Amino acid sequence: MNVVAKLSEIGKKVDPVIERYLMKSLSDEFKEVVLHQVRTGGKKIRPALTITCCKAVGGSEEDALPIAAAMELIHNYSLIFDDIIDHGEYRRGKPTVRKLYGDVMAMLAGLHYREAIAEAINDSKNSKVLHELVAKTIKDIIEGERLDILFEQAGRREEYLVKHRKLTVTLSDYLNMVSLKTGALIRASCVAGGIVADASEDEIEILDNYGMSIGIAFQIADDILDIFGEEKRIGKKKGKDIIEHKLGNVVILLSLSYLSNDKRRKLLSILRKDVVSDKDVEVAMELISSTKAKEEAYSLGAKYVKQALKFVRELPPSNDRKLLEELAEFIIYRKF
Amino acid sequence: MNVVAKLSEIGKKVDPVIERYLMKSLSDEFKEVVLHQVRTGGKKIRPALTITCCKAVGGSEEDALPIAAAMELIHNYSLIFDDIIDHGEYRRGKPTVRKLYGDVMAMLAGLHYREAIAEAINDSKNSKVLHELVAKTIKDIIEGERLDILFEQAGRREEYLVKHRKLTVTLSDYLNMVSLKTGALIRASCVAGGIVADASEDEIEILDNYGMSIGIAFQIADDILDIFGEEKRIGKKKGKDIIEHKLGNVVILLSLSYLSNDKRRKLLSILRKDVVSDKDVEVAMELISSTKAKEEAYSLGAKYVKQALKFVRELPPSNDRKLLEELAEFIIYRKF
Repeated sequence: MNVVAKLSEIGKKVDPVIERYLMKSLSDEFKEVVLHQVRTGGKKIRPALTITCCKAVGGSEEDALPIAAAMELIHNYSLIFDDIIDHGEYRRGKPTVRKLYGDVMAMLAGLHYREAIAEAINDSKNSKVLHELVAKTIKDIIEGERLDILFEQAGRREEYLVKHRKLTVTLSDYLNMVSLKTGALIRASCVAGGIVADASEDEIEILDNYGMSIGIAFQIADDILDIFGEEKRIGKKKGKDIIEHKLGNVVILLSLSYLSNDKRRKLLSILRKDVVSDKDVEVAMELISSTKAKEEAYSLGAKYVKQALKFVRELPPSNDRKLLEELAEFIIYRKF
Repeated sequence: MNVVAKLSEIGKKVDPVIERYLMKSLSDEFKEVVLHQVRTGGKKIRPALTITCCKAVGGSEEDALPIAAAMELIHNYSLIFDDIIDHGEYRRGKPTVRKLYGDVMAMLAGLHYREAIAEAINDSKNSKVLHELVAKTIKDIIEGERLDILFEQAGRREEYLVKHRKLTVTLSDYLNMVSLKTGALIRASCVAGGIVADASEDEIEILDNYGMSIGIAFQIADDILDIFGEEKRIGKKKGKDIIEHKLGNVVILLSLSYLSNDKRRKLLSILRKDVVSDKDVEVAMELISSTKAKEEAYSLGAKYVKQALKFVRELPPSNDRKLLEELAEFIIYRKF
């Protein structure tokens, strides 16, 4: 069985748990709005990590289920708000919550997710430690999202954002942003598995390091897919980050450092246009493709995967550890 | 010392606690955005209830502080999103978070509040029970807000909202909506005080009943102030609920039942205008004032206050119980 099949196997187990917490204290009329987001599917990488990390340090799948569900809920919680913030219309090949029900209902549905998360944590072992972990993690995701928005070069009218926009972004700024926006939750998904397994401090640290490394690799892969992926497989518009004026995409960022002054100015001028046309995206893609940014991004991602493998191999060998190794490899070379 | 002075006395104690949880894992740059909402002040009724209820059943103020702070944070969390949903520009006589920093930053700040709430709960006694209480309470607030929006008669363009709008609202629909939107948190503020005091089941039930009764009375008073209050004292535009097309205001709702068919149609037609002008508000006010809706609303509120007093007097007499009685009276006859 390949990694993708294993992920969907695990997804099947958390789906009913996720829906149970969302359905608690939910009115009949609101059900369709609230359930839409989780019913669009997803790869279920985060709950798979929680369950597998839990088992890799001697815990049971059963103990991991509620917090694994919470991790997938946090991911979906962040996506609902991401789509509101970015006016996203499609995700996973399906209309977003806001596209179907409007921003206001999407916002209320999103807030409801946060309470389902709290309830799922409460049903887990060592819930107090998990509440602390989740609160810190979500604060980090918010900070990462805030930076990602400030790294945009145009497109928003709010005076405060225009004034605080970052016109130059270094690779180190980027890595800090993604370690918050994406790394924090993937890392927490791993650590949470250790917490419900009553893992030792050393084991938790291994899971923490492994999670942060694959988290960054995951976002790098996401950035590559945004520019070079197949629309049908990634389920969203190709070049979305260019349309959204983002400097916070590693491929765009790296390409800037390889382009001649003229071409760099050209690419930046596209990112700074109020409205980026299809033709603009095409030109931007050509500029990016003329550099070795894609290869560099892959090799940066591979560096983090290598780090992750080194960390996880500090755990005793097991089928679960093997799956964590496969997951690390999948994360960078995935096509969706 | 009158009730208002006592409230501000208590406010002084929770303010630093509130800021401490908001400042945790908060970047320097985001600080001004996040702290704005709590720095606009507020009456601090909810933390005062938590602390006073805790003491009224034998608990200590010290034990109540973190959860009292959490209750005020929940209130502010809901206000940030309320203002985003209703495009609110002023509250407590000051610009709203979204007015100063835009909807996107306001949303991120709001989400940050929810994590400060989780952290404050975690530092409280019986935190697991409190996490459950807060999750259920916030789900209820969301449902109440959803209903309040569906009770609006115009003004929103989202297809889903237009389709699901409630064109007739009964007093019982109204009471259900406010018991969720406002009652749930005021009730939880009272119950939480009991929980950290290790109160008996009977005592918790008394606090629960007392809280729900004053919660409904509180919203009735809010509705009256919206139509008849002094702008300077209430800190927001008078007749805001008329401008926002709301049937979910008890004064508007009651007036409809007293008006002749012609006048009722006139008032409804104003509420159903896409844009309600100052002149429209004036006409609506005259129509409402021509009925005994204001008196009826006061007497409905007074009924809930009476109920609340009956409940709270089941507790043994004490200075704290006395303050709870005074608070109940204040809640309906307040001018702000």
